[in-house]
Amino acid sequence: MASSTLVPVLFHCYVTLVLFSLGPVMGLTLDSARDFLTREEDTIVFSLIERAKYPYNPPAYDPSYLGELGRFGNRTLVELFVRESEAVQAKAGRYQNPEEVPFFHGGLSLPLIPPYNFPKVLYPSAASFNVSQTIWNLYFNELLPQFTTKGTDGNLALTVASDLACLQALSRRIHYGRFVAEVKFRGAPQDYVPAIRAKDRDALMKLLTSESQEEMVKRRVEKKAMVFGQDVTFDKPVDTGDSNSSRASYKVDPMVVYRLYGDWVIPLTKLVEVEYLLRRLN
Amino acid sequence: MASSTLVPVLFHCYVTLVLFSLGPVMGLTLDSARDFLTREEDTIVFSLIERAKYPYNPPAYDPSYLGELGRFGNRTLVELFVRESEAVQAKAGRYQNPEEVPFFHGGLSLPLIPPYNFPKVLYPSAASFNVSQTIWNLYFNELLPQFTTKGTDGNLALTVASDLACLQALSRRIHYGRFVAEVKFRGAPQDYVPAIRAKDRDALMKLLTSESQEEMVKRRVEKKAMVFGQDVTFDKPVDTGDSNSSRASYKVDPMVVYRLYGDWVIPLTKLVEVEYLLRRLN
Repeated sequence: MASSTLVPVLFHCYVTLVLFSLGPVMGLTLDSARDFLTREEDTIVFSLIERAKYPYNPPAYDPSYLGELGRFGNRTLVELFVRESEAVQAKAGRYQNPEEVPFFHGGLSLPLIPPYNFPKVLYPSAASFNVSQTIWNLYFNELLPQFTTKGTDGNLALTVASDLACLQALSRRIHYGRFVAEVKFRGAPQDYVPAIRAKDRDALMKLLTSESQEEMVKRRVEKKAMVFGQDVTFDKPVDTGDSNSSRASYKVDPMVVYRLYGDWVIPLTKLVEVEYLLRRLN
Repeated sequence: MASSTLVPVLFHCYVTLVLFSLGPVMGLTLDSARDFLTREEDTIVFSLIERAKYPYNPPAYDPSYLGELGRFGNRTLVELFVRESEAVQAKAGRYQNPEEVPFFHGGLSLPLIPPYNFPKVLYPSAASFNVSQTIWNLYFNELLPQFTTKGTDGNLALTVASDLACLQALSRRIHYGRFVAEVKFRGAPQDYVPAIRAKDRDALMKLLTSESQEEMVKRRVEKKAMVFGQDVTFDKPVDTGDSNSSRASYKVDPMVVYRLYGDWVIPLTKLVEVEYLLRRLN
């Protein structure tokens, strides 16, 4: 048998082995993963609407504001707040769930509660890849100024608590890319293994991209921003988010949410998927 | 002049004095207070929908669950979490804003941030009245089992974080009764002073009650639960919360939200208003 014939046969054996050694992901399918991401859209839109109750509140993001107190290593109020809140949530076991990724790994306490047997879905060597720093920078530098009004109203604690809710919702959605990648990989390893072995990011990105699906997601989150961000009154008809709706009255501009998904959430989720897959055969 | 004639004259002088010594509440009107309460409805409905993502998760509320660890005075996970989260939020200055009332006053740290000049609206001797313990008991004993499914999914930290969001939203709404009472009092002290002096709770409750207004609020929050709690899809029409809508598909039963307002939120807000007014002339 010539080596050119042997390669595909061996490859087929390898793929079969991978399939058998893995088996299906318990309870997780591409449909259930999509349901999870669809539900997370509501959480993200709610969190943005809640953050928009408060103006930008610049002192929360100014390192000199707390830095003058000298004790906090020139950290911003929001960083201090997120670090301490994550520490409290770690004690309550938040990061036992592999869906949850903290922004600050250092200084997290051990959980006070016994371990819960979350399904082992992720491939261990690939599970720890994260884009938390990128999400953090994008949220504060790009997104926040787009949907908050200028000014300060003194509600810094409520502001940073709302920021934390937004950050956690975005992080959960984007890092769920690891689960999506695992499901897609197990569903068709023969499609992914060659590109992973060749470290071909472009090929993986192409495999993971469905432009029509992405456009549908963007249109849906835009519609959610209209439906959830309107002023519902007792006697006036509900805004159904169709093309005749007026954008002026929404609590968060639906186009900001459309672009958030198009420019960052979907691309970052796919980046997580690609990087996860590149580590999938380690 | 007979004493029977003197009394109303003196009373009129007193009322005039009260009016002049107080003046209008800076920036706060009955309309702006109503706008605040209307916006808070969205926050409450969002928070309930978010809590409903998780099942009831009984270990979070079982004092023996952490109590076995011996160090936490037989406290539940949710109590420990709320105490520690309030301590972090106090450091960020949350309770500088008189609209915010913590559930656990003990052990709150001093704010790290400089004081913010929130408008002085509340009458100091009356401002500290609160019903936090009642809200806590109602939320956990009555409300929570009505809108969560039975079971445990291991997400205890996300569960108690969602509980905190619900509790804080309900507390802010109900304790805003102090501001509403102050505005109503300043708008018509001649109506309130006699009942306050007579410690006549029933008369005060009657002055503060508008059944048609309350029914409108209840119908509006029911509609918000329909509009915000539906599954918005790209291609299906939006549920407008009219009488033909099917209740099966909402994330939180709109009737639970209707009753939450009718049985607890509105009565507790009015209780806060009455108790505030009873202390208003101290």
